[in-house]
Amino acid sequence: MAVGTAGIASRLREVIARDRVIDDRTTLIPYMYDASFWSLRQRRMPDAVVVPESLADVVAVVRVANETGTPIVARGAGTGQTGGAIAPAGGIVVSFARMRAIQEIDRRNLQAIVEPGLVYLDLQAALAEQGLFFPPDPGSGRACTLGGMAANNASGPHAVRWGTTSAYVLGAEVVLADGSVITTGGVHSKALKSSSGIDLTKLFVGSEGTLGIFTKLRLRVQPKPPARAVILAGYTRQVAANVRYTDAILRKRAAVTRFAEDEKDVARLWAARSGLAAATALAHPGKHRIFAGEDLAVPLTEIPHTVRRARELGAELGIAVVFYGHFGDGNVHSAILIDPDDADEVRRADELADRLHKLAVEVGGTVTGEHGTGAVRAPYMRAEHGDALDVMKRIKDVMDPKGILNPGKIYP
Amino acid sequence: MAVGTAGIASRLREVIARDRVIDDRTTLIPYMYDASFWSLRQRRMPDAVVVPESLADVVAVVRVANETGTPIVARGAGTGQTGGAIAPAGGIVVSFARMRAIQEIDRRNLQAIVEPGLVYLDLQAALAEQGLFFPPDPGSGRACTLGGMAANNASGPHAVRWGTTSAYVLGAEVVLADGSVITTGGVHSKALKSSSGIDLTKLFVGSEGTLGIFTKLRLRVQPKPPARAVILAGYTRQVAANVRYTDAILRKRAAVTRFAEDEKDVARLWAARSGLAAATALAHPGKHRIFAGEDLAVPLTEIPHTVRRARELGAELGIAVVFYGHFGDGNVHSAILIDPDDADEVRRADELADRLHKLAVEVGGTVTGEHGTGAVRAPYMRAEHGDALDVMKRIKDVMDPKGILNPGKIYP
Repeated sequence: MAVGTAGIASRLREVIARDRVIDDRTTLIPYMYDASFWSLRQRRMPDAVVVPESLADVVAVVRVANETGTPIVARGAGTGQTGGAIAPAGGIVVSFARMRAIQEIDRRNLQAIVEPGLVYLDLQAALAEQGLFFPPDPGSGRACTLGGMAANNASGPHAVRWGTTSAYVLGAEVVLADGSVITTGGVHSKALKSSSGIDLTKLFVGSEGTLGIFTKLRLRVQPKPPARAVILAGYTRQVAANVRYTDAILRKRAAVTRFAEDEKDVARLWAARSGLAAATALAHPGKHRIFAGEDLAVPLTEIPHTVRRARELGAELGIAVVFYGHFGDGNVHSAILIDPDDADEVRRADELADRLHKLAVEVGGTVTGEHGTGAVRAPYMRAEHGDALDVMKRIKDVMDPKGILNPGKIYP
Repeated sequence: MAVGTAGIASRLREVIARDRVIDDRTTLIPYMYDASFWSLRQRRMPDAVVVPESLADVVAVVRVANETGTPIVARGAGTGQTGGAIAPAGGIVVSFARMRAIQEIDRRNLQAIVEPGLVYLDLQAALAEQGLFFPPDPGSGRACTLGGMAANNASGPHAVRWGTTSAYVLGAEVVLADGSVITTGGVHSKALKSSSGIDLTKLFVGSEGTLGIFTKLRLRVQPKPPARAVILAGYTRQVAANVRYTDAILRKRAAVTRFAEDEKDVARLWAARSGLAAATALAHPGKHRIFAGEDLAVPLTEIPHTVRRARELGAELGIAVVFYGHFGDGNVHSAILIDPDDADEVRRADELADRLHKLAVEVGGTVTGEHGTGAVRAPYMRAEHGDALDVMKRIKDVMDPKGILNPGKIYP
């Protein structure tokens, strides 16, 4: 039974605690945005935001969405850059801000069971107390949630060594489009690997809430390097040799290099690196950095050509753009700097983002290395995936026949 | 249009070279078996074996299967232990023995493009010439194929450090049930990572030919450790310290330990380890090792209990069983030793395998860490995966509506 957009909040209040449903327009404003430039212009307000506190809440809300054919969009911290957490067709946004528990850190089995709203930094802090860590390292780690990371298969500079989030999700509790609940990776499993059945976990990871909604994640974690002095010393000697060797190569090409050996200096350099995305804006005072065309990943051999060509495109269109990234896995980030009130500059920035995405596909890369497809990159799926896109759509249709799960994302 | 089992070979000879189709009963015999005990007793002969030489051949064969509703089963080296490469309902077996080309080793982009019939050892040899290696290390590596490894998400003792095959398949060319062809991971991509679209590659990997048939694999490979003496020396010092430390711990518990430092001794120990599966049979001369219930993977904390309980079960049933494995990722292998002509012993061995599988699920593990589900472990999918099995079936049905792709495997 369809209900009007005004009716959806009342309907939701029948199934979960009244104060867990938001529909006053002022409070809804933040939910119009994520970090994408797209969301700044889209400005579509959801009809309601719900802030569930339990699996039962999420199930109740999904059932309402299913019965009424209402779009339903899961949201973590809203740090995404693709419009993934936005409801462009209206409907319900499910904020996981209140489902952020660490249900268990099982040190001896090297895994943690967490709710999707858990902030990455909070997970790392809790793990560190037990001598553990979670290897993926997204740039937005101070704010982003584990649910968002799993939905987008996020990663970061260390992916070249450790792999992406996908490698560290062992299982998940997922609410399906009809409100039923499954556990992937084995209902009661704490195995570290499995070849049993088909790998639904890895299908849901990276599917951006279009096939189901995570309510729990079983994560693989790693022990920190052992603290025995003799081994640490040996290790340090090796690292120092490696770093000096790399440094010598870099000096031949780089404008600036910094060498750090002791723990404090190393931490300072990494802090500088993690501030880089924000710092790019300083390159052109008065301009604002927008996130668009910002996440190309290309074959390693194509990095120089890609950066060169991307620079040329920026120059041709008269748009300031700064490049950085983690080139070890081919991920080229670009910071487009514009005055968002200058309509012509905005048009040229759109053109640049479009050409950057096409460039990535042209050189045998992907339009997104780690940020996801969302709304903004859905138009490039056919060019990148060809007929495989039809298979993605077939799976989407069978998992979500009414098309209520995060519509407008991934599948163009 | 359905054709009789006798007619299928003639029909196939209309679409691919006549000598690529085998249907004389003597030549078909080897295709009745893989390494599973199950296949030794099943003894169902396929109606025809085809040995395609190209994508076009595979497409032509799948089209015939689709038109006639004939089961079609992909086969690599037949080293599997689950009946995965067997056609228990008859039909067509597709042997990839003639599609074993390395199409490209792209050293600078750290990837290789190979046909699925390529033998693992041949890949490693070709990679080694370029200073590269492929991290997964299955015990059957001298014979098994990359296609079989991808189909089963195979791994080996090094998975605890490097992950499973899934982490090293960047993309695949796949023939679908209707004979159409897709490329997952980006049609022209050589990116090392991607968050674009949903991850079809990881869905097909481990799906055992039940969702599509691999005709090409794009693999991620790794550079071997650098050859600079100073770093190698440093590395060796560190490894030696680690190994000595581990050795000291092991001595407290193990009946026998061996310490090796120089390259030749290390290689000899690994060779001994890789011969272990075969050597288990020597524990009881006159008995034969069968592969059944051989691939449990359990939470790390459950390893002692699992091995203890499994030993008890063996003793209760009067069946000789030897345990080994790579306990670092919880993978407990068991070698059941019986006289296959003793009907009562066979019955008790079946009972033991059944109880071992149930034990794995009971302790929060999985019935298969790296060998796959196949026919032999399909009966345990409901217990391990609960309602998630229904989602697997839904995906199976949409990908293979006629149920021709490797029927009788995975989905009970």
